[in-house]
Amino acid sequence: MAQDMLLFWGSGSPPCWKIMIALEEKNLQGYHNKLLSFEKKDHKSKEVMDINPRGQLPTFKHGNNVINESYGACLYLESQFKSQGTQLIPDIPLEQALVYQRMFEGQTLQQKQSDVIYYTWRVPEAERHDSTVKRNKEALTAELQLWEGYLSKAGPYLAGKAFTMADVLCFPVIAYGFRFGLSQEKYPKLGQYYTLVKERPSVTASWPPHWLENPQGMDTLKDV
Amino acid sequence: MAQDMLLFWGSGSPPCWKIMIALEEKNLQGYHNKLLSFEKKDHKSKEVMDINPRGQLPTFKHGNNVINESYGACLYLESQFKSQGTQLIPDIPLEQALVYQRMFEGQTLQQKQSDVIYYTWRVPEAERHDSTVKRNKEALTAELQLWEGYLSKAGPYLAGKAFTMADVLCFPVIAYGFRFGLSQEKYPKLGQYYTLVKERPSVTASWPPHWLENPQGMDTLKDV
Repeated sequence: MAQDMLLFWGSGSPPCWKIMIALEEKNLQGYHNKLLSFEKKDHKSKEVMDINPRGQLPTFKHGNNVINESYGACLYLESQFKSQGTQLIPDIPLEQALVYQRMFEGQTLQQKQSDVIYYTWRVPEAERHDSTVKRNKEALTAELQLWEGYLSKAGPYLAGKAFTMADVLCFPVIAYGFRFGLSQEKYPKLGQYYTLVKERPSVTASWPPHWLENPQGMDTLKDV
Repeated sequence: MAQDMLLFWGSGSPPCWKIMIALEEKNLQGYHNKLLSFEKKDHKSKEVMDINPRGQLPTFKHGNNVINESYGACLYLESQFKSQGTQLIPDIPLEQALVYQRMFEGQTLQQKQSDVIYYTWRVPEAERHDSTVKRNKEALTAELQLWEGYLSKAGPYLAGKAFTMADVLCFPVIAYGFRFGLSQEKYPKLGQYYTLVKERPSVTASWPPHWLENPQGMDTLKDV
């Protein structure tokens, strides 16, 4: 059934990676996919815009069903293929509640991390302020410390003993943080988590190709 | 079973309102709840912080299961009470895909709207720029036009003929827009949608009390 699926994706994009990990976990290998280049503005090409009026990656289709939003696509895959591959949302209410809680807290982590990483990319030079950068970095530090606390209390995965949808959706964000220079010494629990999950088959199978070609990342987050 | 539930909420907060609409739709009236004041910083009180280390509203508990993230809480309620009240996530794959798609596009709408409404509240005076305000307003206009298009092609609800989780999660954001001065003339489809859904029993039952007391809103979005 993965033959009915089409994913347009960009290398290293956390939202794309989330769907790719979900596809692997649900044993949906063999889906059609096309690696596109943000630099060449492929995401604004007709083949993407026809499916996704926002002109963004990921762009994802299952048969005629379009779900370009990464959270939506992952929830859709879990719902449609519930009994196939890894069960990503547990049935036990207490466990399910924690998975839903962490999944969406991950959006705050992504937001705060993006505010730092993309600052100079998003904000025109004339509108930049050191005070904003400082505040954004402090907000990210506080956010990361919250996650350190979660992993100290329960682990090794984000919602406890099992790999769940919380990991599918948040691991790419955390990996992106380390790619951009986050310190494993300052955030040892997140570092351990990263080390554990990066060896997972679904993650190695979908590892961003340009990170393999160029293992050296950036240092944008080195003083966070 | 609603007796096992506790919601701390703030009047007019879209994330709180989302959970309240979901509770109504799932026939979970009678849940314990406490209206708190953002002005008095009740959301940083011990009773909230004990359940929600982020010190935010909504704060929500079902028995011992804590889900403070509004999207997470709504998905949890739908999952736990699937056959009770309104089915908010359809089973038919094509319909389900559209619901998941619109649910998460709603986060972009909320983000872009918040960037305009909260600008002076979030950004210190020394860091403000007219050019940022202009860009944020243009981004919101483009976003709203996208939703006008969606409602022109299919309606009357956000994912078509039925009221779904997309409406639970996005209506409070759209209502908030109109409360802050959005023009029903400029966005007629969204205006029709607003007029339709605001009469829905789940929505009237959970209408922000301070909007009832003071029906006059703001004009922050009047030129968007």
